Amino acid sequence: MNDKVGFIGLGIMGRPMALNLRRAGHRLFVHARREAAMKPMIAAGACACASPAEAARQADILFVMVADTPDVEQVILGRDGVRDGIRAGSVVVDMSTISPAATRTLAERLRERGAELLDAPVSGGEAGAIDGVLSIMVGGPETAFARVLPLFEVMGRNIIHVGGSGAGQVCKACNQIAVSHTMAGIGEAILTAKAWGLDPEKMRAALLGGSANSKVLGIHGQRMIDADYRPGFKADLHRKDLRIVLETAQALGIALPGTALVSQYFNALVGRGHGDLDSSALFRVLEAIGGLGPAVD
Amino acid sequence: MNDKVGFIGLGIMGRPMALNLRRAGHRLFVHARREAAMKPMIAAGACACASPAEAARQADILFVMVADTPDVEQVILGRDGVRDGIRAGSVVVDMSTISPAATRTLAERLRERGAELLDAPVSGGEAGAIDGVLSIMVGGPETAFARVLPLFEVMGRNIIHVGGSGAGQVCKACNQIAVSHTMAGIGEAILTAKAWGLDPEKMRAALLGGSANSKVLGIHGQRMIDADYRPGFKADLHRKDLRIVLETAQALGIALPGTALVSQYFNALVGRGHGDLDSSALFRVLEAIGGLGPAVD
Repeated sequence: MNDKVGFIGLGIMGRPMALNLRRAGHRLFVHARREAAMKPMIAAGACACASPAEAARQADILFVMVADTPDVEQVILGRDGVRDGIRAGSVVVDMSTISPAATRTLAERLRERGAELLDAPVSGGEAGAIDGVLSIMVGGPETAFARVLPLFEVMGRNIIHVGGSGAGQVCKACNQIAVSHTMAGIGEAILTAKAWGLDPEKMRAALLGGSANSKVLGIHGQRMIDADYRPGFKADLHRKDLRIVLETAQALGIALPGTALVSQYFNALVGRGHGDLDSSALFRVLEAIGGLGPAVD
Repeated sequence: MNDKVGFIGLGIMGRPMALNLRRAGHRLFVHARREAAMKPMIAAGACACASPAEAARQADILFVMVADTPDVEQVILGRDGVRDGIRAGSVVVDMSTISPAATRTLAERLRERGAELLDAPVSGGEAGAIDGVLSIMVGGPETAFARVLPLFEVMGRNIIHVGGSGAGQVCKACNQIAVSHTMAGIGEAILTAKAWGLDPEKMRAALLGGSANSKVLGIHGQRMIDADYRPGFKADLHRKDLRIVLETAQALGIALPGTALVSQYFNALVGRGHGDLDSSALFRVLEAIGGLGPAVD
């Protein structure tokens, strides 16, 4: 409770996460690019900071929750960035989903100032952020993890320290690999059921009781059947996550044929302007390819 | 309890299923190609029949549990087959996983003799058969389903009537599409974790708590991590199931790119003589492709 807490990035995910920290009684120093995003936080009793550097000056533990690798690099290394304000002994916790390789570089640059970086990407989407039940996959120094754990526990439920710097991001990459495949599989299953005239609702119910049971079948399977693609987790961000996975695979020199295939579906979906739909809308691409639905337009 | 029950096919799956029926007190008439397979059933109080026709003559409800489409066709339409012995008013229940199109033809041929066919493929493997907790996906006439349901309840736990003749097989096809994709996804995730130096056990534990949670991650993920490929469900049969899926897709005129990809892994695995391994051994192919493991040999 004594640590002063910073939070940079108050979007769909960051805002409810920061609000949960505030509600738990923490002194909160926030920054967001758009001033409007800070207003509800100020109303909730947080202090608004003019720059990431300013938030870093105030905070002992500083969370970052933005969209992509370049955003985190800008927040930490850019002009008036976190690195300019951070004090020795502080911990920066990047909860964005970004490149594991970039994470290691950022950790080095912060270490030069005596600060530590945890990479702590999450799974569970907006609903998980609001309810404080996110899964949090954490990489970085174990002592820093132990220090931040009480704050993680305000935001999430399944919190695992998986290894050194970057390990959290790799774990999140693994999560997206698994989710993407499962989603594509459920999509092909629904496509097959529909083409044959089998009620996809009955198919889903039958599969939920057996070896095909998965969270994706429960949640995204239902969305595909209902053609209800309100997010959820946006296709645009899913595509970004798979880009990171495939960049990582290239850097590691490994082949991920299935992930490469599914990433193409997201390219087609986002390329036609559907990036704001829930990621389960990849079913629209399968329908188009499968010859059952209208072309993705 | 009054119906006389027949059971044809006493292999890894059929034998424990038939034993459960016998233990539940049903009069049982069994047939298997290999005489040795009938011995434990005779010891358990079942009557051995010399042919499928003979079992059909005795039984009011006759189960078939063999490997593939041609096996079921042989059992039902072949010399001394079920069709030669079946009485009007009887129900044949094919619990094998075979072609939905062939199922419809078989149903017509039995209807000519006044008998009905249910297609009732299962999910859950040998363990599910032994414990009587199989998932059973049933297609065919609803009245026949209602009549057989008490017997299904001896063998399974999640029993769903999904539609008309063939619908059970299509549902099983959907199950295998979903399971295959999920398995490949978990495989690529473990490959990525290993290549980066992230402990795959920790990765699995983290993913089990979030949106990537699935039965496949729990069961097959552990087998891949342990390289423990004792079956389980044999790669050979998984390959056969995917062949049926892709034949069905061709007949329906739909594209299933992911299933087509995963089926190639099973071709490689089985082609090198590993058909007797558990289907999760597809991870060996991913390792070989991925450049981490030894070639599949």
